[in-house]
Amino acid sequence: MSTSVNRQFYLHQRPRGEPSGADVRRRDLPVPQPAEGELVIRNHYFSLDPAIRGWMSDTPSYMPPIPVGSAITSTTLGEVVASRHPDYRVGDLVYGINAWEDYSLSTGYFLAKVPADNKYPPHYYLSIFGAVGLTPYFGVIEAGRARAGETLLMSAAAGAVGSIGGQIGKILGCRVVGLAGSDEKCRWITEDLGFDAAINYKTCGPLVDAIAKACPEGVDIFFDNVGGEILDAALLNLNSHARVVFCGAIASYDSAEPVPGPYNWWQILARSAVVQGYLVSNYLDRFPEGVGQLAQWLDEGRIQFREEIVDGFENTFTAFRRLFDGSNQGKLIIRVDTH
Amino acid sequence: MSTSVNRQFYLHQRPRGEPSGADVRRRDLPVPQPAEGELVIRNHYFSLDPAIRGWMSDTPSYMPPIPVGSAITSTTLGEVVASRHPDYRVGDLVYGINAWEDYSLSTGYFLAKVPADNKYPPHYYLSIFGAVGLTPYFGVIEAGRARAGETLLMSAAAGAVGSIGGQIGKILGCRVVGLAGSDEKCRWITEDLGFDAAINYKTCGPLVDAIAKACPEGVDIFFDNVGGEILDAALLNLNSHARVVFCGAIASYDSAEPVPGPYNWWQILARSAVVQGYLVSNYLDRFPEGVGQLAQWLDEGRIQFREEIVDGFENTFTAFRRLFDGSNQGKLIIRVDTH
Repeated sequence: MSTSVNRQFYLHQRPRGEPSGADVRRRDLPVPQPAEGELVIRNHYFSLDPAIRGWMSDTPSYMPPIPVGSAITSTTLGEVVASRHPDYRVGDLVYGINAWEDYSLSTGYFLAKVPADNKYPPHYYLSIFGAVGLTPYFGVIEAGRARAGETLLMSAAAGAVGSIGGQIGKILGCRVVGLAGSDEKCRWITEDLGFDAAINYKTCGPLVDAIAKACPEGVDIFFDNVGGEILDAALLNLNSHARVVFCGAIASYDSAEPVPGPYNWWQILARSAVVQGYLVSNYLDRFPEGVGQLAQWLDEGRIQFREEIVDGFENTFTAFRRLFDGSNQGKLIIRVDTH
Repeated sequence: MSTSVNRQFYLHQRPRGEPSGADVRRRDLPVPQPAEGELVIRNHYFSLDPAIRGWMSDTPSYMPPIPVGSAITSTTLGEVVASRHPDYRVGDLVYGINAWEDYSLSTGYFLAKVPADNKYPPHYYLSIFGAVGLTPYFGVIEAGRARAGETLLMSAAAGAVGSIGGQIGKILGCRVVGLAGSDEKCRWITEDLGFDAAINYKTCGPLVDAIAKACPEGVDIFFDNVGGEILDAALLNLNSHARVVFCGAIASYDSAEPVPGPYNWWQILARSAVVQGYLVSNYLDRFPEGVGQLAQWLDEGRIQFREEIVDGFENTFTAFRRLFDGSNQGKLIIRVDTH
């Protein structure tokens, strides 16, 4: 059911450090109308991802920054409610890069349809079949070139990407060790997900030693979502010719000051390691392959994942901020109330 | 001619910051005698390389640090004067990893013979046919995967490795831009060596802009010998899928404090770039191929290089320190006086 109001979160000013309600504000706009070649999506779900924090800054990055005054960019899933686009019809279920708003105007750029024969909950296309599943899929297999018998170390291992990436490592035959920020998270990834070991980085003492103990044969693949001290400790445990999959740097997203790269930068040379700057979009043309394989593993019970679905448009920004204090449990998704 | 004294520079204490005569000292030892399986080399030349500074520190690296109290490790070239090793005979001309001393005892580890049919000055095996030539050869071609039409940016471009690496880039068909620390060096690499452009990083103003201007199509390969601010400026000019060949970090070798990695670390992810920690020894089994190709280019006049040969054992350490103030002109080699 639609209304005549388009609620939206927009960037009022660029955050310095942790974003606040002074930076990201709400407003009501008219519902957009499609011009020729455009369509309008009624959003049902928003995907909340740490990367969105980066898009709020004007540091040069892989996408243009969100312009001040514009809606907060986000992957969403919704239904086409109006279309003057030849490839989309009213009623199509679509997902792609839109924004935190009831209605998104789209030209079809970075938009895809949920397959008509989809047998899974549609919001899976914002989690296991979206970036959260495809990022570790191509990251572990392609960027990390993980092979049976190697040791895969995963940071933010109880997070959405890390928990799936670790399970993919296990399927490939790796020893998989995860870093997480609570004993409960460590128990989950070892007991439920089958990680070989977990390190509570908040209580383990010197991190370099804790990693060395959990990875007695060294680290062949470090899949990094965090950066900072965790990255520095991992670098001192790399084997020769190790691969660092640089997927994220959540430790620094909220910093107001420039954050230096790793102090152990030299170890990259000393160990003939490779740091691969990694974006899932590098593998865009292979997404169908990734979704197919993930679906098979899901059906076989070889991959588990958690979603935390928060109800209500108005909770979007509050929930987003929880990504940075470690309190969310699984992939955070907003279910937009159809007011 | 040999004597009964073995002059040696040794590590008296680990330097903090710039090494001084309090850290590296001289002493006279008896000439070593070979045990079974060993040989003794009378050193004629020492290769002075920035990497030696790293070996004086106990930061974990690709080789064990020089033990306090031991001779300063260095590539040398000399003549076998005594041998109880089956593969070496008195009179053989050999080069490899030995030390700053008149006589080196060797087991043959990391040692090679100058070919009997060598037609070049023997000390070429410490420069163009040694690490100075092979490092840029495998670094530009293999680690950097440089291809015709791409832009290669070289730091320390008037240095021994950088000047040869840039010429290899030109042979491959790249646009080659060099960073150097004086107008004279910039003239040399453009006018004599054929670099397409040079940047005097000391006078060019904001480095990010200077690189952007000299590399209008962006940087595809950044071959880095320096690190620090130069690396940070290069990262902001990388093209998507650029390769950073991490060959050295001379800007930080003399630092007494921990040096952070690049502040623009995020750009590695943002540009899907790859940082390849690079050691020439990764290609040990292909050294003959590299020497053969370099010799051919040399004979064809397609590669030039400079050596600065300093006479006298006693000048070794003073000359070594000049590597860090940029005052040497070409590959620094000590010609040991045969006292």
